[in-house]
Amino acid sequence: MVAIRSAEIIAVGSELLTPHRTDTNSLFLSGRLNELGIEVRAKAIVGDDLGDLADILRQALGRADLVVITGGLGPTEDDITREAVAAVLDRPLFEDAGIIATLEARFAERGFAMPANNRKQAQVPRGAMVLPNPKGSAPGLWIGHGDRVVVALPGPPRELQPMFDIGVAPRLAGVTAGRRWRRRTIKLTGRAESQVDEVAREIYSPLQHAAVPVHTTILATPGQIELHLAAAGADIAAVDTALDAAVTALATALVPYVFSVDGRSLEAVVGDLLRAKRLRIAVAESCSAGLVLGRLTDVPGSSEWVVGGIVAYDNEVKVTHLDVSRDLLGAHGAVSEQVASAMADGVRRRLGADVGLGITGVAGPAGGSPEKPVGTVVVAMSGIAPAVRTFRFPGDRQMVRQFSTAAALDLVRRALLAP
Amino acid sequence: MVAIRSAEIIAVGSELLTPHRTDTNSLFLSGRLNELGIEVRAKAIVGDDLGDLADILRQALGRADLVVITGGLGPTEDDITREAVAAVLDRPLFEDAGIIATLEARFAERGFAMPANNRKQAQVPRGAMVLPNPKGSAPGLWIGHGDRVVVALPGPPRELQPMFDIGVAPRLAGVTAGRRWRRRTIKLTGRAESQVDEVAREIYSPLQHAAVPVHTTILATPGQIELHLAAAGADIAAVDTALDAAVTALATALVPYVFSVDGRSLEAVVGDLLRAKRLRIAVAESCSAGLVLGRLTDVPGSSEWVVGGIVAYDNEVKVTHLDVSRDLLGAHGAVSEQVASAMADGVRRRLGADVGLGITGVAGPAGGSPEKPVGTVVVAMSGIAPAVRTFRFPGDRQMVRQFSTAAALDLVRRALLAP
Repeated sequence: MVAIRSAEIIAVGSELLTPHRTDTNSLFLSGRLNELGIEVRAKAIVGDDLGDLADILRQALGRADLVVITGGLGPTEDDITREAVAAVLDRPLFEDAGIIATLEARFAERGFAMPANNRKQAQVPRGAMVLPNPKGSAPGLWIGHGDRVVVALPGPPRELQPMFDIGVAPRLAGVTAGRRWRRRTIKLTGRAESQVDEVAREIYSPLQHAAVPVHTTILATPGQIELHLAAAGADIAAVDTALDAAVTALATALVPYVFSVDGRSLEAVVGDLLRAKRLRIAVAESCSAGLVLGRLTDVPGSSEWVVGGIVAYDNEVKVTHLDVSRDLLGAHGAVSEQVASAMADGVRRRLGADVGLGITGVAGPAGGSPEKPVGTVVVAMSGIAPAVRTFRFPGDRQMVRQFSTAAALDLVRRALLAP
Repeated sequence: MVAIRSAEIIAVGSELLTPHRTDTNSLFLSGRLNELGIEVRAKAIVGDDLGDLADILRQALGRADLVVITGGLGPTEDDITREAVAAVLDRPLFEDAGIIATLEARFAERGFAMPANNRKQAQVPRGAMVLPNPKGSAPGLWIGHGDRVVVALPGPPRELQPMFDIGVAPRLAGVTAGRRWRRRTIKLTGRAESQVDEVAREIYSPLQHAAVPVHTTILATPGQIELHLAAAGADIAAVDTALDAAVTALATALVPYVFSVDGRSLEAVVGDLLRAKRLRIAVAESCSAGLVLGRLTDVPGSSEWVVGGIVAYDNEVKVTHLDVSRDLLGAHGAVSEQVASAMADGVRRRLGADVGLGITGVAGPAGGSPEKPVGTVVVAMSGIAPAVRTFRFPGDRQMVRQFSTAAALDLVRRALLAP
């Protein structure tokens, strides 16, 4: 087999042709393929139509060394990827007994008999290698075909991503040559995209013209900015050195907003800090109403550092369960630094934690006033390193809640980092 | 010219093949085309490569009545859309004097002479109609070619969108057969995709061959299945009748799993039920740790029916804040129907709510046992219509938490619906 240098990606599914959804798996796949030194030459999105998929697959194989197909591997009549691959590569389908056994075991574990239509997922084109799917029922396929390779993976990202990393990337690494792309990600919070860009631009402009050019992209979501750095070359050590220097320069210029340069999420960084200091946290949430606790406990093992919390959506709960006095509520209002601090204190003492965190705000669309418009949010920390901050976030209800959650976690991060 | 019924969309630009960007113009275009009764059959994304674009355009014209190309109309060497269209349709390019005059005036207005490379934007395939671009320098193209139409529009959405609405939509309206697409969505929970498909298939198979054919797609995420129905026709009333009949047949067959046929989320449906019955809810969460409260309060106005909750991540919090007895925890374990029910009772009484909801389970990756493996989750409701259910969910930590959240909300929905 000759080296794999170029790829095309085909996403299958009629829902991806509607006005409200489109393929996003190809972004993940492009990143991984680029890292392996494989260029993505084109992408296609096709409905659940056997003829159209076969047509587009045939044409892609005429241009690219590798074609990755995503979706269309489910158990329903709609799912036509197996048939299309079999037709284009002229390899008849047969039923794989190993897949049947795996599917039956999977359903038995949940106390069901395997529905008859799942049998379809055991159909495999002759000569294909089956890629196990630990997170779902649809196995993937790897088919070497002359000097070409066809890979088929299920559509759900949580199934596709580990299958690519475990089953596809190592096989591709053996058949690609030379140049590799390497990437770094800097994650930060507490700044707007334009503020980050203004600081970072002076650093990354010259990087694009260095001996090993470093390409940068900025990506913003509510409460989080990511700087993506990428560089390519045959000499991996030189590429890594260039990227590390760029990360250091950017992270230094953007202290104290940077929370990770190693891919960790903000909640994982906060969890690591709490664990290292042997501290346990309790959270009192009003406008964020569970989202801060939801993120903190998204980290495996978080029961070590999260005690729990009180969601005080009704002001009465702030009084009865967080010991916020009615006088304080009356004097300053529920969205105030005084009340946020009292919430943090109350939840820390009530739940016996070392650190207390309080979040209160106006998420909207109703509830705003001239003094405290929609988007006004106060976060407070109690116990170790008491702190309180007031924010005015832009956007709709959902954005304000996301911003609040990030701001609360970041308050803890910064307080625990302080010397 | 025959009627235009189907379209393909091709986005041109190498930046759209990187890991951080993809085509989004096709979402806008799909919406507009569907409104005009035109089905989008496939989409492609191609780099700035003349050969690849020509290849993909040729193939698209073999399948669809209309091909819309976005991007690649700028003044630089990279911009190859005009050349590709000219090559595929075999219509030589000539320089359009009108475009040159418009470009010169545009630059003169800003006090510049027209740069030499902008002259390229005046190249037009013979027989093409020029579509003016009030917001940029790149004019668009409309080319009737036998019974096919090719449209080329610039990539920036603020240029493309008004050009489509002003220059393209009215022309298409004249050549479509008056067919319009309409859509419906059925949302359900509590079943696996294959189980839903097995029930639904007998209903929707004949629908595809009815007088007004109804097309269906099934989409699954952890804790939610969506059935998307679409139909087209010149007689909108007949299309709506066919869709409504299909929705009724499917929703009837899938009671009690269907929670909405009008687009509402599960948390909005639960909120509407609570509000209608003037009931207020409080939630005690362990494995879901805030996610149920987060979803309930995602609905604007939810302070009317959500009191708040206790996140009892540590068992000690279950005892001190939810009145779960140590004996009960010792006898049955934290993940048990007894403890879930006690949590629901405790949070309801402590927070003075009408309805209490308790969620406890093993989200993993650690904490499983042979009797209670990872994925074991118990949800309980107290107050109005007490109920308790044990589940065994598949997947990783994140999936188990999503499944738990949907199961808890659905327990409330079903209890409040019961006569």
